[in-house]
Amino acid sequence: MSKQRVLTGITTTGTPHLGNYVGAIRPAIEASKDDSNLSFYFLADYHALIKCGDPEMVHQSTKEIAATWLACGLDPEKVVFYRQSDVPEIPELCWLLTCLTAKGLMNRAHAYKAAVDENTEAGEDPDFGVNMGLYSYPILMAADILLFNANKVPVGRDQIQHIEMARDIAGRFNHHYSNKFVLPEAVVDDNVAVLQGLDGRKMSKSYGNTIPLFLPTKKLQKHINKIKTNLLEPGEAKDPDTSTVFQVWQAFATPEQVEEMRAKFQDGIGWGDAKKELCALVDAEIAPAREKYEELMGNPAVIEQALLEGAEKARSYATDLMKELRDAVGIRKIIK
Amino acid sequence: MSKQRVLTGITTTGTPHLGNYVGAIRPAIEASKDDSNLSFYFLADYHALIKCGDPEMVHQSTKEIAATWLACGLDPEKVVFYRQSDVPEIPELCWLLTCLTAKGLMNRAHAYKAAVDENTEAGEDPDFGVNMGLYSYPILMAADILLFNANKVPVGRDQIQHIEMARDIAGRFNHHYSNKFVLPEAVVDDNVAVLQGLDGRKMSKSYGNTIPLFLPTKKLQKHINKIKTNLLEPGEAKDPDTSTVFQVWQAFATPEQVEEMRAKFQDGIGWGDAKKELCALVDAEIAPAREKYEELMGNPAVIEQALLEGAEKARSYATDLMKELRDAVGIRKIIK
Repeated sequence: MSKQRVLTGITTTGTPHLGNYVGAIRPAIEASKDDSNLSFYFLADYHALIKCGDPEMVHQSTKEIAATWLACGLDPEKVVFYRQSDVPEIPELCWLLTCLTAKGLMNRAHAYKAAVDENTEAGEDPDFGVNMGLYSYPILMAADILLFNANKVPVGRDQIQHIEMARDIAGRFNHHYSNKFVLPEAVVDDNVAVLQGLDGRKMSKSYGNTIPLFLPTKKLQKHINKIKTNLLEPGEAKDPDTSTVFQVWQAFATPEQVEEMRAKFQDGIGWGDAKKELCALVDAEIAPAREKYEELMGNPAVIEQALLEGAEKARSYATDLMKELRDAVGIRKIIK
Repeated sequence: MSKQRVLTGITTTGTPHLGNYVGAIRPAIEASKDDSNLSFYFLADYHALIKCGDPEMVHQSTKEIAATWLACGLDPEKVVFYRQSDVPEIPELCWLLTCLTAKGLMNRAHAYKAAVDENTEAGEDPDFGVNMGLYSYPILMAADILLFNANKVPVGRDQIQHIEMARDIAGRFNHHYSNKFVLPEAVVDDNVAVLQGLDGRKMSKSYGNTIPLFLPTKKLQKHINKIKTNLLEPGEAKDPDTSTVFQVWQAFATPEQVEEMRAKFQDGIGWGDAKKELCALVDAEIAPAREKYEELMGNPAVIEQALLEGAEKARSYATDLMKELRDAVGIRKIIK
């Protein structure tokens, strides 16, 4: 039986934080070790341009994210790890699909509809401030997925619609031209941990409540110390299940360690001590990857080399299909 | 002084007819001989996909149109003559520009608005039957133009808006990132002859009133015989200025020949004779190109070779700019 192709895109804006690590990086790297899958991971820098007009940030973030995934154990020999913009077949397929996509389909996209609603409420033109990247990125996403005939695309609930759109577009192509595309399936894992940030809300760059992944130990402790707690003193019993400190602890601890910490909360461990233990726990898991990360960041040619080899590998899966697609739509060499 | 870059796109749907020859091909080839210009001509096959879902037609038409331009005297040594789909920088730039294009700008495009009006009148959803290719092709057109920093784009009046959109998008890029793009200008030549078709309306594929350019002499005569005339008999004076036969004659005759035919009309030349003379005149101009055309169509490897060399030449103008553009938006190699 041929391997299931699993595809994951990582938008290159921002510096990876503990929430990304727990919710995305760690489980994805775990999944990549499953030999029944062929995993594709790509740095979605074309997508980054939609929201990020700061070239330095796009560039720096691409470097940091690539280094992070490699440092965390993604094995480029085993998976296909590439930068979107190194695969010219992606924007080309994007145009081919654009010609097949009903505008009405894009009108129904959640992200676009949310922008329209916001504008309408503010009394603005419905399309105020909307750029065509925001409007048409589900087509680029379809190209990302379909070019590699991915069977499965792990996504959050908010992204399911995009996978359905990719299926819809693929179905149109298969019907109108010929049966070239696998219909991808969204895979939603509701068990993926959503880490809380410093203020107790979901850890997210947009809330400004993140703990960057690769801080030196001292700075990591400083960040952890900022996690919001209540005013209970050492000696007073604390409720683990409403505590962000405990929630983060759970994301890094073994089941035994979880139970030990639960007991300590009931025994009235002080917040300062709990945060010290938390920092030690996180640091112990992160440290080896951090060392690797710093090595890579100091030697970026190694990252670049991995990405270039990854792009070559990615294209080895893409070029034959692209040739067939061009042929199917009539964009052919004049002589065969 | 550096040469003015003049860029012309030719959509690859349909078989070239006398109207294309008189209104576009002949003047463009004339203009390509002007040494103060550097002329770019491209077969717009990505654009063809918007309206044409028939792969055989896209393919056949690309071949016929390429052969036609070469047969009519376009010199690939002197100009840059290429197939759009051989230049991967075009769809890539299209995506970069997509991220910078306001959706509101696309809403104002004439072709889209016409489709919306038609739907609204028919009581349909405004976007009924509209595909994203139709909606967003002004961005692809902007990429076609800006990638080569074209100064001038000869267009019909109905296309001026697209050039203005390309200027608008280029201006946004120059303002937000850095000054990379020349702002292109539309060049409208109101003197370009609009040839009448068999029924007296503008000769156009969509009216089904065309005379294909490279018909064998006998078939050319048959088509010309179908040009609509009035019922005046031989010997009765005829009005040249309301006659399609005379209008086509003018497009091929020298000033002396025009005056001679005007006199013959007044002298009451029969329609049959006038059409015979017209066929002989057109045939005399077309015959050498037709021979060349048939030779090329019988030897398509020569066409393909010209296009591949053209693509290489086109890319030699495009790749450096594309590198700069990627750098400007932050899509960079990790090491410089």
